[in-house]
Amino acid sequence: MGQRLVVIGGDAAGGSAASQARKRQPDLDVVIFERGRSTSYSACGIPYWISGTVDDEAALVARTPEQHRAAGIDVRMRTEVVGIDLDRRTVAWRDLDSGAEGREPFDDLVYATGSVPMRPPVPGIDADGVFGVQVLDDGATLRAELARGPVRRVVVVGGGYIGLEIAEACRIRGLDVTVVDRSATPVGTFDPDVGAQIAEAVRGEGIDLVLSDGVAAIAVGTDGRARAVVTASGRELPADLVVLGLGVRPNVALAREAGIPLGTSGGVAVDARMRTGVEGVWAAGDCVESVHRLSGQRVVVALGTHANKQGRVAGINIGGGYATFPGVIGTAITRVCDLEAARTGLSSAEAEAAGYSFVRAAVDSTTKAGYFPGAAPIRVTMIAERRSGRLLGAQIVGREAAAKRIDALAICIWNEMTVDEILSLDLSYAPPFAPVWDPVLIAARKAFEAVEADVRSL
Amino acid sequence: MGQRLVVIGGDAAGGSAASQARKRQPDLDVVIFERGRSTSYSACGIPYWISGTVDDEAALVARTPEQHRAAGIDVRMRTEVVGIDLDRRTVAWRDLDSGAEGREPFDDLVYATGSVPMRPPVPGIDADGVFGVQVLDDGATLRAELARGPVRRVVVVGGGYIGLEIAEACRIRGLDVTVVDRSATPVGTFDPDVGAQIAEAVRGEGIDLVLSDGVAAIAVGTDGRARAVVTASGRELPADLVVLGLGVRPNVALAREAGIPLGTSGGVAVDARMRTGVEGVWAAGDCVESVHRLSGQRVVVALGTHANKQGRVAGINIGGGYATFPGVIGTAITRVCDLEAARTGLSSAEAEAAGYSFVRAAVDSTTKAGYFPGAAPIRVTMIAERRSGRLLGAQIVGREAAAKRIDALAICIWNEMTVDEILSLDLSYAPPFAPVWDPVLIAARKAFEAVEADVRSL
Repeated sequence: MGQRLVVIGGDAAGGSAASQARKRQPDLDVVIFERGRSTSYSACGIPYWISGTVDDEAALVARTPEQHRAAGIDVRMRTEVVGIDLDRRTVAWRDLDSGAEGREPFDDLVYATGSVPMRPPVPGIDADGVFGVQVLDDGATLRAELARGPVRRVVVVGGGYIGLEIAEACRIRGLDVTVVDRSATPVGTFDPDVGAQIAEAVRGEGIDLVLSDGVAAIAVGTDGRARAVVTASGRELPADLVVLGLGVRPNVALAREAGIPLGTSGGVAVDARMRTGVEGVWAAGDCVESVHRLSGQRVVVALGTHANKQGRVAGINIGGGYATFPGVIGTAITRVCDLEAARTGLSSAEAEAAGYSFVRAAVDSTTKAGYFPGAAPIRVTMIAERRSGRLLGAQIVGREAAAKRIDALAICIWNEMTVDEILSLDLSYAPPFAPVWDPVLIAARKAFEAVEADVRSL
Repeated sequence: MGQRLVVIGGDAAGGSAASQARKRQPDLDVVIFERGRSTSYSACGIPYWISGTVDDEAALVARTPEQHRAAGIDVRMRTEVVGIDLDRRTVAWRDLDSGAEGREPFDDLVYATGSVPMRPPVPGIDADGVFGVQVLDDGATLRAELARGPVRRVVVVGGGYIGLEIAEACRIRGLDVTVVDRSATPVGTFDPDVGAQIAEAVRGEGIDLVLSDGVAAIAVGTDGRARAVVTASGRELPADLVVLGLGVRPNVALAREAGIPLGTSGGVAVDARMRTGVEGVWAAGDCVESVHRLSGQRVVVALGTHANKQGRVAGINIGGGYATFPGVIGTAITRVCDLEAARTGLSSAEAEAAGYSFVRAAVDSTTKAGYFPGAAPIRVTMIAERRSGRLLGAQIVGREAAAKRIDALAICIWNEMTVDEILSLDLSYAPPFAPVWDPVLIAARKAFEAVEADVRSL
């Protein structure tokens, strides 16, 4: 019998690892256990499926179980791994439909269990009518619920990326939507001034945004169904449906039980090749922690792009090749109600927490030459280390064609460039694409002036 | 009397130099001589003014003579510098309207004369009805000509950026437009496959594109006006108006006469601080040559973004500060008939000429997640050095939101990244902005595979 690779979790990370390993080592036996009904899908696409922007569930699936099988991979759908025995090198599984149970031996194991949505431990949280949105099946459930009937008022708990995207999706469906968030501005990974712009855009779409207020309880009706969200300040927000958009935490229960070491952040600890501390056991995706290249800390960042890369790296290494995952710098992008926002590196709060002293500069410019039709506003904010002028973080907020420019700044940060170096970069210029001084360059100039002024004041 | 700075040329480079120098040294006497009717304008905006996309000439002017004067700068409009005396440290000038002449002494001199359009030395080239499009006054002349009357057929000589932009502008005005170019594909700074896509887009807009054919003569009517363009192959292309879009060369006549050293490329030679070889004489903008950071050659790149940066650098140094211009990597971007195209680094032909051996990889992807409404095609091509895998060049062609992504690759090249390093970058991902594998990352993966395959074959 050949070598056997068992993969727990058939989404981005697990699917990529399986494909890469098998591609490099065609005689490898590969088994994927997936407890849901889908493999390799775009979780980030769920809000757009809920809104109806994307009509077809199948469109969100990059690789179906059948496609994996055609590549020679044994995919066990609706089958949950319930235990890992590292000594005997087996996993115990249960078929969620038939109830059948069994064990599967492995030589190599990829732990790619993803994440679980955060649920605040408040009364009523488990009532009917309270939904998480994390896996594709959740999206199907929510869509069915919305289609079912008399839902008019939706309360979304959490004003982060996913919370706002779901809120907008419900608004597009014509529902009354309220978002509750503990912070003073939504999407706390942005600096407050950017958060304020996001808040304004969200409210401009007719979404009610309740800020600086947490969730104390879910009020449950006599029918056992959620009827309102009760906030810490005592407000009662009526709801036909409650959606939890509080983010996720790594799904490490099985790993912890089995003795696969976890890291300081709570995710599974891995090295650059995605090896856990246990021989032949790998991990990838939302369940692992990554090195943040600026703070030096280990962080868990649940994002499909990392999951795909990490799964690929694990698969190449398992297949006998060599690849590494070099860490993250916190790049993220979102579109909320026609406002585009993106960030990379450290926010002001994160930079402070990491021990950096820095200056901050923001410029307002346009996405095209100011005189060009369709020129849209763009604000670029830079956070540069004192003295060195090294770019530590950047945020972009604006309208059409604004936010994707964050990639340029992500690469500046990746290469540890100073704002002085950045302002001389040979970036593209033509009137339909930028003013003659690109917003990125103007921001770098302004940040450099702030660094110089600070140095003179020392 | 204080120090006196004389600036020859009041567009991007000269205007920036004057402003920066005066800002840093408020008691500096600054005189700008400008032979045209405008200062500090967007030459790149002229095609959009001709098409009517931009309606107002004033919109193209970043800083008027009056604004310069309000900043304490003495601006002499319609006044041409006709000689530079480096021994006496004076310039000789002539007022183009009154014919008055005089001399102006200088302590520092900025040579910012820009460029002159290429004119093929063929019969009839100086006939009426043959226009160059280079300075804002040219745009005004052409607009007047088009508004004047019976122009129906326009022939544009040259299928580079400016030629195609002018052709499109005329097409938008409803004219019959033909473009003639010697090469087999237009915009020769792109690889031929990208050029072929551009050709298809141009033809798709109803513009007639005559390729692999040069201009042999301009046929002139009995009224002394151009009536057709005669090509090398003998075709006669009837024209009510001929526009020259063959690019430009540095305007160095005055410098050559005065003994200011020119470089190997034909532009004025400058060091990193924009100093010419002559004490107190600086140069900036389209008339100077720059270091190409990849080929190591000196090149002349006429582009507003470089002119502005170089002028700023000269002005800071003249004003007693310290700044340098670190060179160029050949980044350029254009939109032709809804097709977006951009490049950075070296094209295949340029890489070969520079002595590099390389692999090439191209991928077709989408600007948003494939399932997302409005996802547009994007092709990313990468040229990577053999063995090292260092990115030498990149080209992007696609539809809306495709081309500006070139900036990310420009920064990769600037930092001498390998395609292996690039494929791990933390770039932004969300369905409205990119597939989960960003097109840039997929291209890097494919280029890396090509590098590896090549290494194995060595």
